[in-house]
Amino acid sequence: MVYVTRKAHFAAAHRLFNPSWSMAENDRVFGKCNNLNGHGHNYNIEVTVAGAPPPETGMVIDLKVLAEIVDRELIELVDHKHLNIDVPFLQGIIPTAENMAMAFWKVLAPRIPYGRLYSIKLYESENNLVEYRGE
Amino acid sequence: MVYVTRKAHFAAAHRLFNPSWSMAENDRVFGKCNNLNGHGHNYNIEVTVAGAPPPETGMVIDLKVLAEIVDRELIELVDHKHLNIDVPFLQGIIPTAENMAMAFWKVLAPRIPYGRLYSIKLYESENNLVEYRGE
Amino acid sequence: MVYVTRKAHFAAAHRLFNPSWSMAENDRVFGKCNNLNGHGHNYNIEVTVAGAPPPETGMVIDLKVLAEIVDRELIELVDHKHLNIDVPFLQGIIPTAENMAMAFWKVLAPRIPYGRLYSIKLYESENNLVEYRGE
Amino acid sequence: MVYVTRKAHFAAAHRLFNPSWSMAENDRVFGKCNNLNGHGHNYNIEVTVAGAPPPETGMVIDLKVLAEIVDRELIELVDHKHLNIDVPFLQGIIPTAENMAMAFWKVLAPRIPYGRLYSIKLYESENNLVEYRGE
Amino acid sequence: MVYVTRKAHFAAAHRLFNPSWSMAENDRVFGKCNNLNGHGHNYNIEVTVAGAPPPETGMVIDLKVLAEIVDRELIELVDHKHLNIDVPFLQGIIPTAENMAMAFWKVLAPRIPYGRLYSIKLYESENNLVEYRGE
Amino acid sequence: MVYVTRKAHFAAAHRLFNPSWSMAENDRVFGKCNNLNGHGHNYNIEVTVAGAPPPETGMVIDLKVLAEIVDRELIELVDHKHLNIDVPFLQGIIPTAENMAMAFWKVLAPRIPYGRLYSIKLYESENNLVEYRGE
Repeated sequence: MVYVTRKAHFAAAHRLFNPSWSMAENDRVFGKCNNLNGHGHNYNIEVTVAGAPPPETGMVIDLKVLAEIVDRELIELVDHKHLNIDVPFLQGIIPTAENMAMAFWKVLAPRIPYGRLYSIKLYESENNLVEYRGE
Repeated sequence: MVYVTRKAHFAAAHRLFNPSWSMAENDRVFGKCNNLNGHGHNYNIEVTVAGAPPPETGMVIDLKVLAEIVDRELIELVDHKHLNIDVPFLQGIIPTAENMAMAFWKVLAPRIPYGRLYSIKLYESENNLVEYRGE
Repeated sequence: MVYVTRKAHFAAAHRLFNPSWSMAENDRVFGKCNNLNGHGHNYNIEVTVAGAPPPETGMVIDLKVLAEIVDRELIELVDHKHLNIDVPFLQGIIPTAENMAMAFWKVLAPRIPYGRLYSIKLYESENNLVEYRGE
Repeated sequence: MVYVTRKAHFAAAHRLFNPSWSMAENDRVFGKCNNLNGHGHNYNIEVTVAGAPPPETGMVIDLKVLAEIVDRELIELVDHKHLNIDVPFLQGIIPTAENMAMAFWKVLAPRIPYGRLYSIKLYESENNLVEYRGE
Repeated sequence: MVYVTRKAHFAAAHRLFNPSWSMAENDRVFGKCNNLNGHGHNYNIEVTVAGAPPPETGMVIDLKVLAEIVDRELIELVDHKHLNIDVPFLQGIIPTAENMAMAFWKVLAPRIPYGRLYSIKLYESENNLVEYRGE
Repeated sequence: MVYVTRKAHFAAAHRLFNPSWSMAENDRVFGKCNNLNGHGHNYNIEVTVAGAPPPETGMVIDLKVLAEIVDRELIELVDHKHLNIDVPFLQGIIPTAENMAMAFWKVLAPRIPYGRLYSIKLYESENNLVEYRGE
């Protein structure tokens, strides 16, 4: 079993708020992340696939192939977007890093052709990150 | 002469477009940076002050003092904001990294109490950065 | 289950030596880390909390709250200190990265209000790091 | 149980190809990694050892000792080499990051004097990495 | 005047040797960089263009355009290549970082459509870099 | 003219205080950097040499040679030391980053055998750095 990881990057705007709460309650919980006009991040994502490399290629999954899947199926949908407004598969959830990582898992897990998706790490900033392993 | 640099960070949304142009012209020039609902970045900024350190302190400017000035006079105004809407001193300019660096210079240059502002570097992403030296 | 991580930083002096050993034995085991007057590091720490994010907030624990806990309960006690002399909860242990990570766990584990402490990673330098998971 | 990690670095050339395949098949599978004259990387490696630190030293394994083992037993053999030609223990395998991590494990695992080898992470580039844990 | 920088990356093999010298002399001067079968690096390059941003775009040069020029005119020619063998514009020079930076300048300077090329920084490894400013 | 840079690292303890001042005055100016028992940092240093690479080597100065000079003449004297106590050439100056960079210049400038010393950059932490160019 080897774990192979591809890193990717996207830039997006978002706003954290719960539409069923008052503005005051949203401010109390989400603070400046509740800024009405949104704010943004350069997100870094690490997608890890686990598997056994077959001897004839020595690769769990070709990292170029994994990069293309991540770009086409995920990055294209979220890069240079407003996550609350422009991304269909994020509608109805609060775009915290936790919720985003779980939503990204649902998008990517069925599209990994070799091995199996093991982990998604999402960095919202240099000091804040989350990891979801499908558990 | 010694050059002292303080790095700081902020997260913001922005949209690149020229309001005197058509949507098609904006799309041609700014591409996905013209996304209607904006996108965002984790910006990194490096503020460099030049001066001669006096022997009794050995400091051009105390980096804690410089950090406080940068935070209070600049970061507080732009962090977790939409740069096109929420930041008074950026009104009327297209928030490219170049224009932002020049606007940040105007904000910070008169507020440096020791030495003189020498350079502002602004990283919009890991691979894209600009520098302005007041020239 | 999602794992959320907050990074923090502190600068401290320390000296590695076992007071029950001779100076020669300390030099043999700890080498230049046994320098009599101490040396120092910029330590980086990653605190990971595991839990399930409730739907109404989408957060295992608000990373701002986690950052405040880490700063108040830990960083304030060790930043700009001599770890052998100035830090009560480290008295009587050799401040290796391994021992520090285990001591930090004891400080932080009972103070995490949501989820449970999962891991403490401590970087003593760019090339040397340890992790403790409470096992 | 504490996990201690030492990072190390080496620069090497390699070429990905399966000698039992045609050039066309190699190009299809390995693309530009199959360049006849090779290409190269700055590889970063993280070697993690797991163990319980004895109280008299507070160290699972002295990180200086681990660094010396990694340098002498591994880095000396691969640094500034062509991995397909110059490295005896890599002969007969395709030098993908997966295969290299597993081969490095075989070299290092029996040479760790304290604790046990837990993980080898190998970064082929900033965005591509693999991990092997001996499973 | 604003300085805008685009970073790019490539992986290549090379060998340092002077064909007019003996093998012994090459070994004395270039050491392990003279390994017969070559070695390799992940090179990072920073291309800086200087100019005044026109008000209607706020950009010295669109960083997407600069990225495309750097990729098409330079990276395509050197990525996943052996620099001594596969790159026509490097023939006849020893591929040290210094010589490469000066050769890259000649390739890129006439192809910058806005502003003027100000600097090329080339990182051969994390600790070794060179800069050429056309002086 | 090409600028070549070598990065190096050391870990040291220090304390900022002016012995001709009262403890209260030192606390007012240097804050927690005046901690009686010292604190410490992982310092990163970048040493830049400027020169023209001769065609037969293509190197301003062999970066391995520069690395050896920096290690032997500077790093050996400051690594794992208390800068206020253990380093003869720093006696009598307050070990701020500014003063250290100027003192390092005096040590290194006469020892560079090819080209001339152009710049010393000293990072005290990830966010705080100084540069001295001998002006």
